[in-house]
Amino acid sequence: MGVMSGRIPPAASLVAELGRMVGREHARAPGAAELTDATEVAGLRGRADAVVAPATPEEVATVVAWCYEHDVALTPRGGGTGYAGGAVPDGGVVLSLRRLDRVRALDPGLWRMEAEAGVTTATVARRAREVGLRFPPDPGAAESSLLGGNLATNASGPHGFRHGPVRAWVTGLEAVLAPGELVRLGGPVRKDVAGYDLVSLLVGSEGTLGVITAAWLRLVPAPEATAALAAAFADARAGQGGVEAVLASGVVPGALEFLDAGTLAATGRDERFLLLVEVEGGEAEVRREGDEVARALAEAGALRVEARAPADLWRWRAGVSHAVASRRGGKLSEDVAVPVDRLAEAVDGVLAIGARHRLEACSWGHAGDGNLHGTFLLDPRDAGERARADAAAQELFALALALGGTVSGEHGLGVLKRGQLARQWAPAAVAAHRAIKAALDPKGLLNPQTKQP
Amino acid sequence: MGVMSGRIPPAASLVAELGRMVGREHARAPGAAELTDATEVAGLRGRADAVVAPATPEEVATVVAWCYEHDVALTPRGGGTGYAGGAVPDGGVVLSLRRLDRVRALDPGLWRMEAEAGVTTATVARRAREVGLRFPPDPGAAESSLLGGNLATNASGPHGFRHGPVRAWVTGLEAVLAPGELVRLGGPVRKDVAGYDLVSLLVGSEGTLGVITAAWLRLVPAPEATAALAAAFADARAGQGGVEAVLASGVVPGALEFLDAGTLAATGRDERFLLLVEVEGGEAEVRREGDEVARALAEAGALRVEARAPADLWRWRAGVSHAVASRRGGKLSEDVAVPVDRLAEAVDGVLAIGARHRLEACSWGHAGDGNLHGTFLLDPRDAGERARADAAAQELFALALALGGTVSGEHGLGVLKRGQLARQWAPAAVAAHRAIKAALDPKGLLNPQTKQP
Repeated sequence: MGVMSGRIPPAASLVAELGRMVGREHARAPGAAELTDATEVAGLRGRADAVVAPATPEEVATVVAWCYEHDVALTPRGGGTGYAGGAVPDGGVVLSLRRLDRVRALDPGLWRMEAEAGVTTATVARRAREVGLRFPPDPGAAESSLLGGNLATNASGPHGFRHGPVRAWVTGLEAVLAPGELVRLGGPVRKDVAGYDLVSLLVGSEGTLGVITAAWLRLVPAPEATAALAAAFADARAGQGGVEAVLASGVVPGALEFLDAGTLAATGRDERFLLLVEVEGGEAEVRREGDEVARALAEAGALRVEARAPADLWRWRAGVSHAVASRRGGKLSEDVAVPVDRLAEAVDGVLAIGARHRLEACSWGHAGDGNLHGTFLLDPRDAGERARADAAAQELFALALALGGTVSGEHGLGVLKRGQLARQWAPAAVAAHRAIKAALDPKGLLNPQTKQP
Repeated sequence: MGVMSGRIPPAASLVAELGRMVGREHARAPGAAELTDATEVAGLRGRADAVVAPATPEEVATVVAWCYEHDVALTPRGGGTGYAGGAVPDGGVVLSLRRLDRVRALDPGLWRMEAEAGVTTATVARRAREVGLRFPPDPGAAESSLLGGNLATNASGPHGFRHGPVRAWVTGLEAVLAPGELVRLGGPVRKDVAGYDLVSLLVGSEGTLGVITAAWLRLVPAPEATAALAAAFADARAGQGGVEAVLASGVVPGALEFLDAGTLAATGRDERFLLLVEVEGGEAEVRREGDEVARALAEAGALRVEARAPADLWRWRAGVSHAVASRRGGKLSEDVAVPVDRLAEAVDGVLAIGARHRLEACSWGHAGDGNLHGTFLLDPRDAGERARADAAAQELFALALALGGTVSGEHGLGVLKRGQLARQWAPAAVAAHRAIKAALDPKGLLNPQTKQP
């Protein structure tokens, strides 16, 4: 798809033009930081002619309209913490949502918040927590990731197991659609089936169908109590038995995570396979459910079941990705998901694929959702290792599909998984995907290299 | 939109042609029952040349492909219990999903079910219940409505307050897309963000973007206990105070319903405004939360708070619509939704609109979601009353929009609310809606009169 055509102004005049729309200090040539995301270690670096940071939804619409009229590609950018290259530009303009950083409304008694795309994930969580409420999705990098990016990727995280992904918590969107129109879809109303579900279509579309500028979020009272358990198992197969035992117990955990031996070793632990289970609710219920889960895990053959303080557990859990990456300096990590009864096959498959490509491998992730971060360790300076990791990732995608799963449970296609959807969906579904892109972005200017099926 | 063009075969040969695809006994001229849905009392009756009932997804694909090739309009039909005319045909073929009635898989330990579009809502609920699980969406008419219709309308019901609509419980769809291709989107995997969210786009699209033939459903353990309270208030304003008090208590009810004075009178009760609150969870939690809700309701000024047996309560609640309709023989009921803090204005507004049009009016519905069934009673034989009710409904839609709500919280646009979306959405959003329809149904043959914005 051609993203730059003949009529494009040169970069300098592009910056000047954008500066006239948003103020000179908010349009400039891109810095290195704006050409990458958290996939940087995979060697992914884009190119762009300008970065523009509008302050209001109306300014976003102005920028989109101008770019659309002048055939300039646009890549919306949140915190740049994605793992699929969805914010890595390929020419044209990087549209930063960072200055749209207002929590416009917080109605504690009505369990809702209206927030702009540039508010950090941590701010959304904190503002909810301060009034006794909760925004359950908890993707990583909370301090730097932005709500707009969470929405654009339909992010989730450990508590997605019980509470679903970001989409489940959005009642409305404000967005700019091509060729530059600011629209509102839904709002604070909790149910709406009047039109096609454009909210769900934009959420998770990775900036390829429109630019989300704000959202109405549904919140829920924070649970009175939580409790967490860690259960060690002999291997992935035994661990999957533990997952199924938890499900069979009838308890609905808030989160149900796993870490395999390689992942645990990277964090300095020597278990072979660990399940983390958090329960949530009223004090009495949490005690009872914690006991039930502990019993189920023990009966399923856990080598050891220990209570853990949830706050400590999540702090440790948040450092896992970094600990794994530190082992050899870099990693390629792919977020495939499989039906939960195929989890052990996927975990073992990651190791087998790594062995075939002479790469240390490991995985961890959201066991209850069958969602794993299948990871190949590498030295980022070693082009051979990088190439082998890329080949390993291709095999991992194929394995996930063979197990009835998906190439992406959380991160999206981005540019890294370009072309993978055609392996997952029938041609007619891929054609529908392309038809929708053409319908909402007829010029193909919105994040043009991302989410290509 | 022209739904019949020059090349169409006459009805008799159409029936014969369809019979060759699905067996002669499964293609015939339509009976009166297939030309209406539950909007019958509003005088809505369609027309069609044939009814066809395929037995398999492949037969559905064959029928769709043939119709698409021959420019014959298709109206998918489930149980015909809709309230918006979405299953009322306007020429061409009625495609009944009734014979796709298999529960293909039920995995109790994995909390999931795969079921075809022709399985009744009641069967889905019963099969889940038999293994200790629950499919939370609970739209009315469970014995006659079909899963396919639930999906096509993104139905919900009282327990949508805590558990969300049908969409929240679907992990994958099998569907036939134009021009007649059977595809699978998602499956038993619980998370999938690889492609655009075509599942959400098809769910709620009222058969206008494709024909859903089966779904993978997520289930959840049934709660150990439930308890219900009924709280009487002096009027809608006081009742809304009760709703907000329940939310402020920090309890998350399973359902939070209301009935106004006129509705209660139709069921033989003399309260002015009633809230019904159900809590669910472990035994201890349910006792504690029931007490907390009762206290919150009393402090908010409830005239009386009574415990009710949940099963009795829901049996009574399920008869409300019929009781209201019986009062004068018919009713026009519209399912608008508003932000929950505007509920009382909507409830009072229904009465004011009824008074202006000299129609007895009432409302009831899902208070916690701000979703009301605003209802105008009428004698279905009286054309004048029917016309006044239609005019009243237009005012109700306008009121819902003025309050920041939607013209449909549950039932969809169907044919009855044709044109209303353009009052709710900006022109650019309506254009996107039309572009998606054109992208997925370029010939405009799938339920052509329904969901027109």
